[in-house]
Amino acid sequence: MVKTNFGQILFGGDYNPEQWPKEIWYQDMQLLTEAKINEATINVFSWAQVQPSEERYDFTVLDQIIDLLVKNKFKIILATATAALPAWLATRYPDVNRTDFEGRQHRFSSRHNACPNSPHFRYYSHKLAAQLAARYGKLANVICWHVANEYGGQCYCDNCAKAFRVWLRQHYASLAQLNQAWNTNFWSHTFTDWDQIVPPNALGDAIGQEKATLAGLSIDYRRFMSDSILQNFKDERDAIRQFDAATPITTNLMGTFKDLDYFKWAREMDLVSWDNYPAYNTPLSFTAMSHDLMRGLKGGQPFMLMEQTPSQQNWQPYNSLKKPGQMRALSYQALAHGADTVQFFQLRQSRGATEKFHGAVISHVNTDKTRVFQETKALGQELQQLGDCFLGARVPAKVAIIFDWDNYWALEYASGPNVRLKYVAQIHQYYAAFYRRNIAVDFIPTELSAAELKKYDLVVAPVLYMLHPGVADNLKAYVKTGGHLLTTFMSGIADEHDNIFFGGYPGPLRDLLGIWVEEFDALPPEQQQSLHFAQGPTGSGSMICDVMHLEGAQALATYGAGNFYADTPVITNNRYGSGQAYYVGTQLDTKSLDYLVKTISNQFNWEQFAAPSTVEITRRDQTDYAYYFILNNGEQAENLIWQKAGVDLLTQQDITPGEIDLPAFAVKIIRCQK
Amino acid sequence: MVKTNFGQILFGGDYNPEQWPKEIWYQDMQLLTEAKINEATINVFSWAQVQPSEERYDFTVLDQIIDLLVKNKFKIILATATAALPAWLATRYPDVNRTDFEGRQHRFSSRHNACPNSPHFRYYSHKLAAQLAARYGKLANVICWHVANEYGGQCYCDNCAKAFRVWLRQHYASLAQLNQAWNTNFWSHTFTDWDQIVPPNALGDAIGQEKATLAGLSIDYRRFMSDSILQNFKDERDAIRQFDAATPITTNLMGTFKDLDYFKWAREMDLVSWDNYPAYNTPLSFTAMSHDLMRGLKGGQPFMLMEQTPSQQNWQPYNSLKKPGQMRALSYQALAHGADTVQFFQLRQSRGATEKFHGAVISHVNTDKTRVFQETKALGQELQQLGDCFLGARVPAKVAIIFDWDNYWALEYASGPNVRLKYVAQIHQYYAAFYRRNIAVDFIPTELSAAELKKYDLVVAPVLYMLHPGVADNLKAYVKTGGHLLTTFMSGIADEHDNIFFGGYPGPLRDLLGIWVEEFDALPPEQQQSLHFAQGPTGSGSMICDVMHLEGAQALATYGAGNFYADTPVITNNRYGSGQAYYVGTQLDTKSLDYLVKTISNQFNWEQFAAPSTVEITRRDQTDYAYYFILNNGEQAENLIWQKAGVDLLTQQDITPGEIDLPAFAVKIIRCQK
Amino acid sequence: MVKTNFGQILFGGDYNPEQWPKEIWYQDMQLLTEAKINEATINVFSWAQVQPSEERYDFTVLDQIIDLLVKNKFKIILATATAALPAWLATRYPDVNRTDFEGRQHRFSSRHNACPNSPHFRYYSHKLAAQLAARYGKLANVICWHVANEYGGQCYCDNCAKAFRVWLRQHYASLAQLNQAWNTNFWSHTFTDWDQIVPPNALGDAIGQEKATLAGLSIDYRRFMSDSILQNFKDERDAIRQFDAATPITTNLMGTFKDLDYFKWAREMDLVSWDNYPAYNTPLSFTAMSHDLMRGLKGGQPFMLMEQTPSQQNWQPYNSLKKPGQMRALSYQALAHGADTVQFFQLRQSRGATEKFHGAVISHVNTDKTRVFQETKALGQELQQLGDCFLGARVPAKVAIIFDWDNYWALEYASGPNVRLKYVAQIHQYYAAFYRRNIAVDFIPTELSAAELKKYDLVVAPVLYMLHPGVADNLKAYVKTGGHLLTTFMSGIADEHDNIFFGGYPGPLRDLLGIWVEEFDALPPEQQQSLHFAQGPTGSGSMICDVMHLEGAQALATYGAGNFYADTPVITNNRYGSGQAYYVGTQLDTKSLDYLVKTISNQFNWEQFAAPSTVEITRRDQTDYAYYFILNNGEQAENLIWQKAGVDLLTQQDITPGEIDLPAFAVKIIRCQK
Repeated sequence: MVKTNFGQILFGGDYNPEQWPKEIWYQDMQLLTEAKINEATINVFSWAQVQPSEERYDFTVLDQIIDLLVKNKFKIILATATAALPAWLATRYPDVNRTDFEGRQHRFSSRHNACPNSPHFRYYSHKLAAQLAARYGKLANVICWHVANEYGGQCYCDNCAKAFRVWLRQHYASLAQLNQAWNTNFWSHTFTDWDQIVPPNALGDAIGQEKATLAGLSIDYRRFMSDSILQNFKDERDAIRQFDAATPITTNLMGTFKDLDYFKWAREMDLVSWDNYPAYNTPLSFTAMSHDLMRGLKGGQPFMLMEQTPSQQNWQPYNSLKKPGQMRALSYQALAHGADTVQFFQLRQSRGATEKFHGAVISHVNTDKTRVFQETKALGQELQQLGDCFLGARVPAKVAIIFDWDNYWALEYASGPNVRLKYVAQIHQYYAAFYRRNIAVDFIPTELSAAELKKYDLVVAPVLYMLHPGVADNLKAYVKTGGHLLTTFMSGIADEHDNIFFGGYPGPLRDLLGIWVEEFDALPPEQQQSLHFAQGPTGSGSMICDVMHLEGAQALATYGAGNFYADTPVITNNRYGSGQAYYVGTQLDTKSLDYLVKTISNQFNWEQFAAPSTVEITRRDQTDYAYYFILNNGEQAENLIWQKAGVDLLTQQDITPGEIDLPAFAVKIIRCQK
Repeated sequence: MVKTNFGQILFGGDYNPEQWPKEIWYQDMQLLTEAKINEATINVFSWAQVQPSEERYDFTVLDQIIDLLVKNKFKIILATATAALPAWLATRYPDVNRTDFEGRQHRFSSRHNACPNSPHFRYYSHKLAAQLAARYGKLANVICWHVANEYGGQCYCDNCAKAFRVWLRQHYASLAQLNQAWNTNFWSHTFTDWDQIVPPNALGDAIGQEKATLAGLSIDYRRFMSDSILQNFKDERDAIRQFDAATPITTNLMGTFKDLDYFKWAREMDLVSWDNYPAYNTPLSFTAMSHDLMRGLKGGQPFMLMEQTPSQQNWQPYNSLKKPGQMRALSYQALAHGADTVQFFQLRQSRGATEKFHGAVISHVNTDKTRVFQETKALGQELQQLGDCFLGARVPAKVAIIFDWDNYWALEYASGPNVRLKYVAQIHQYYAAFYRRNIAVDFIPTELSAAELKKYDLVVAPVLYMLHPGVADNLKAYVKTGGHLLTTFMSGIADEHDNIFFGGYPGPLRDLLGIWVEEFDALPPEQQQSLHFAQGPTGSGSMICDVMHLEGAQALATYGAGNFYADTPVITNNRYGSGQAYYVGTQLDTKSLDYLVKTISNQFNWEQFAAPSTVEITRRDQTDYAYYFILNNGEQAENLIWQKAGVDLLTQQDITPGEIDLPAFAVKIIRCQK
Repeated sequence: MVKTNFGQILFGGDYNPEQWPKEIWYQDMQLLTEAKINEATINVFSWAQVQPSEERYDFTVLDQIIDLLVKNKFKIILATATAALPAWLATRYPDVNRTDFEGRQHRFSSRHNACPNSPHFRYYSHKLAAQLAARYGKLANVICWHVANEYGGQCYCDNCAKAFRVWLRQHYASLAQLNQAWNTNFWSHTFTDWDQIVPPNALGDAIGQEKATLAGLSIDYRRFMSDSILQNFKDERDAIRQFDAATPITTNLMGTFKDLDYFKWAREMDLVSWDNYPAYNTPLSFTAMSHDLMRGLKGGQPFMLMEQTPSQQNWQPYNSLKKPGQMRALSYQALAHGADTVQFFQLRQSRGATEKFHGAVISHVNTDKTRVFQETKALGQELQQLGDCFLGARVPAKVAIIFDWDNYWALEYASGPNVRLKYVAQIHQYYAAFYRRNIAVDFIPTELSAAELKKYDLVVAPVLYMLHPGVADNLKAYVKTGGHLLTTFMSGIADEHDNIFFGGYPGPLRDLLGIWVEEFDALPPEQQQSLHFAQGPTGSGSMICDVMHLEGAQALATYGAGNFYADTPVITNNRYGSGQAYYVGTQLDTKSLDYLVKTISNQFNWEQFAAPSTVEITRRDQTDYAYYFILNNGEQAENLIWQKAGVDLLTQQDITPGEIDLPAFAVKIIRCQK
């Protein structure tokens, strides 16, 4: 049985001391211990070091690092080192190098650079993982395996083309079926031999980098690439499992990253870990959403915050410092949303190369006198005091938002109706409306059964463009038996191959929603369309304006003047069985969206909190306790009226209902009896 | 003798039912008949279907479609299906695939993707056209052949390089002459062997995608490419003519499209057809200009509006709906400017692939209950009532604007003086000034003789940068005998090889215009230069400011303060024989341009009309009747004082002089006795 | 001994009459003589002409041109014609063509297109230079050799890869040392064989076009490319020297051009020449800076203004005319900053090809009646009257700014902290502050000894990011013995391999500056940070805000509110030995920078002048005289209070202290007794 509870909040991060002399290592141990760091992630990009040539492994340095960490009682997350190819491999077996979107095979470059279908990459990465597991798998300090790093990207080489054809044969019974699925009749694309199918890059079927001639082909290539890279993960995972049956295995994901179908990936991972790198202008709600999405990948199981920077990054356009208190607040935000670890990239700063200006717990100055070190240390002490009190605690949510990578890809490969229509932005818009009311949200995949959906009062499915078989039926069964669904324009449009459902939009959802969308207008960015709620405010829509007809639903809002669809419905509500289905036919302005979400939310007995805009209130539950995380993520002091008695875990002071002061980046964790 | 009069206004469009089951076909016939559709364009992208492999043709499905259409009394425009390569051909003979500007040979991509000089493409496209003509050429319903589709693009492969060298040998007596023509002495580009000449792409002589080292080489490559692709058209046309002597043959053009010298193309086509896709923010005058340009290609012969969307597109950034009435108004605009057909892309919407969101008469919902269908049907009824009343009628114009693809290319390959100087924008500026006065304009090529020019009171030649041999003499003879010429900065600069005329700008036009342009200043976009008319308003110039000297001409306007050429001439007028030649030395603001055009126009006894800005008034003439098309292309109601008695053909009501109300998108066709 | 004094101010420029018939040549001689042109630069792009094939040289035309110039008493600068490959060479030996950043070998393109490590290019360019020197080296009129033209660019072909490995072996004792230097441990980049190293283009280690994975590799590739191309120069120089021992040899440089380490180049050149092409919106101070930088390359030795346009260019986006008087003022600006020549590109305008719209002394109209010709002629007369009066005179400067190409490259290859941080902009900011006070500035390389620095009161070293061995020690010794240093954020960061100095920023300069920079914040463009001087104005910082601690220095200015580093030092001053070291921790607004520079400058007894913003005052010194150049580079008249008695060389009138009127583009050269 694989254990995924680490017994304490892991506090650590990436550590690669190889580039430094030994005396530095010893200093590091002292400093990290002083900061209450209890974990180190090692060996992430060390392939060339642990295998300096085709025929030779050399674990001398890694042994020394592990010895040192063990002596100093650090827990170890051991990476398999395969996220960057060693030069000997790139040179000796060019097939390991990727061929890019432009059709060029690379020579030796950067990282995350292996062709996933390269036989030599698969052979040598599997072999290295096995070697590492055989050597270190029994070591008690090794508490987690970290396969490769931040998987992603695409390859378009001939090996991939061949593997794609195999994948296609597995997914389509015949070429005829494939031609039907991709609607290849269009523009004379009918394939009469599997070997005629080529990857959809600049030399193939791509239209720019965002669109495709045969969307079905491009979506399948995305699926195939995600699967191919997942196979790389599985190769290494299985190699480890030969020698180590119990240590959990993960790889670090990246939030709303487009390339990989993370729901599918999570099924192969023992636990989810991810890297959180908000920019100076990333909305607070976006970071919160990313945490919730990552938590959702394994159905709410606590996740690891595998990376965040202690302060500064190097690869953003403007690498602002985190303000005093901000790293702490962001760390608690992760914990609040379901993390059981707080980890940094990185414990020690690089001497040179592209990330030399990326922040670290121990920076180039090599002292504990820095602000960043002192803040890390203070946090380390707090986390140590917190112990395991909310380890494993779950976030209770009555609202779920569907996030689906197939929809992500399909929507963005579609040519039309509006070039600015982006999947994640649409999802975030809805998430943010709940976030502003401090209503907990889960993210769920598209394929849950009605029974699984049942735990939620409300399922939100923005731009549910592509419906896999069964999805519409599940949603109908869910609503019929009392569930609530909120969906939007560009939903119910296409089947799993991106062919349009016949018989009027929103396709299989038409009777559920009680509407027929006859047309969807696309608005350029300089245009808005006014609208007004039947019993509420006036507002505006943009991006897309559905022109629809009621078929049983009632209009909650209608368009205002300014277009021929003035006075026709734009937001609707349909009673369906004992539940209700809402539909929003445009991109709402914030005020309208907030009004709609408030109206819907107030039907339910949900916990929700009014709070200043920079303050978020989140909850994790254990058997007996609810832990409320109250965070001020802003630079201004705020305050809040709080109703629940409990104990502030960070100060151990009793909290009684009343006003709570929240200085800049304040954190409160209030434990309440359930 | 090829017939080009279809006996009625064709009302139809692209129809590709292959991707749908048979029961849909039967429904389609009912719906299209209901909408008074009388024509279907078929087989446009069906190569893979009608020839599934190198050795096999299969006309089963096409036979069925044609049978059905014949049974339902549709006229048929039969396409040759060669506008997109089938996968078997792209795979079996890679030379059919284009090599792009970046130097990469494509594998299997999109459409309009054949190398025009590929022996295999030429062989198989010719053979397919012959097969189709042999099989369907005698069929009465087939009233027109549609070769390929929207020809365009460039190829830079080695086959094209070789063919280019052959083309060059045909155009230059010797390498010495070619070196002279291209001024290859510059930057040591002298060629000592024809085989040293390579296509001007990113690996050759291009400077970015818009400029060139040897402009002469790049212009010749444009000419060669236009000729090569035209040869593709001729290959298929001649194949058809072997089996079908009388049916007209066309291909659909694209307005001001840069790639092909449409005047040269039109000489090989029996009639001109084109595809009209204005965006939501395309000026009304630009669409009108495009129609007039297309009509001009064959000297005023009525053209076919081969494609327009019934409402929405998919490939624009913002695919707005056409408003109620707008599709009708745009259809009549085409008829008003000389079209004899109203055709759609498309009669039925695609199930999948890149154009699945492109509008159609029958949309995904598959019903006649849509707004778009109903508007189509209403238009069909109107057109049926109109019958053949203005079929073949000509647009009478006393003003001609020269449009010349060589100038288009040469001006935009020139490095300097101003990166924002674009050919079509300059042409449109002048066209729009006449459009605003509802003065009919013809477009003419550059090479008309003085006798041919004589039918016009005024010839307008903006940025007549490149003068082919004879052009200056023709213009002089035209003006000398009473004609009027209006030209602008950047005229008379270069010969047909893009070498500068010696002896002062505007070169061979210097004595005709009675000026010497010593210098031309280039203004960045943030700068304007004031100017004032001798007897008129003040205004401003931008983009280019010529610094000129009068050599017989008089100044109509001079520059204002703000630069060293203050008080020097900017607009001039020269009496030359019994005619006059006008010159405009800057890009005028709208007010100045309107004043100039008004001043010139008022000399003549032209029909011109004042009307609100969204209203256009156009005329087509038959032997006895003049047909006035009065269109309100705007969303606001307008009205107009109208002086001519006649009959409104759409209402059959008498029109007497007085005020005419023009609701949004109103259309009036007033037939008057001549 | 190579002579570099031409005995008179050279007034001439590029002349390529080959494309014109002989009768034009004779006219040219008359016109150029009329304009007092005394020099012609010939043969610049004539490789194909002088060597029409592999086995044949043909000097017929060149002989004729030289004969004509000699007969007409022109001095000749003879170019070696190797700056553009002839077509026969590009075709016969493809290795001469460059492989671009995208990894594509070019075929035959543009100019400056030779692979520097191509054996065939090196062989044939050397041979051609030798042929030319053997034939024309003894000719008295040939007063200077001009090797190739505007060297630059990169090649990424396999020949270059191989040569790079050889270069690396020369610079690194072992692969181990190289791995250490490039910190290849990062992202598994350790090389175990020299042959694993590939050029850092799009297929290699580049991250976009501006950043790199292994910055050390990319910086070394820059160094290697600069050296490789320099070897091309040396190849030809040495070939010439075999036949001509005394004539100076140069090549034309391009100001702050990034590609080549011009300080290293200048050591191989007999004299510096450069091409000055300000755009319509180039700051006056930027042009002045470029002149001073070019003068600095050979330690203040007078340079040649090899190219400027008489009026218009063709390759800028907006090719504005030079106003009347502006070309003259810009010519004197060059002389004022140390030029001994005024040369044009070009004496005669091209007939065709990409530069046909580039201005010339004799333009297409082929007459002396143009404004440009007349202004050229007037200047020619003035220069003839000036004779040799300030030839060889030196610019006296007490301020030096360090400009270093290694820093240029290293700073811009760095990923982080701020994507808008650009080397030249930072240098220019400081230069402009001295320029506004009319304080003379020298540019110096980074490696001067303390003794060499000693001639300056103040050394300014903005963003002295990379410190080569010895640089910190030199600066310390300089300050310790009384020198003054002004440096900024991002200084003292990295060693010569771009590895970060350990022990806190600014590394080896920490004790000299008496500060420790703990962190540097990066501000996005929309943010500013307020600051105030202890005894001066308030202002603001942007781009980077250092967070620093005083370690002996005093704060001259501190941050204002708005960030956590409010009230901490931002500008500091440290007494070190008998000198002082200033540090500026942010990018200052103009007002603050001016205040700082004023404060520092007022400590010294420097000549400095207040003047209107478009007026600059510069000085060149000979044994007995100081020549003050007073230029109004603006279009408005200005005036000035002037204190020094002397003679105005252009009017031969006595100047007495008092007000001087300066019309638009006025020029005064006042000779004063020293």
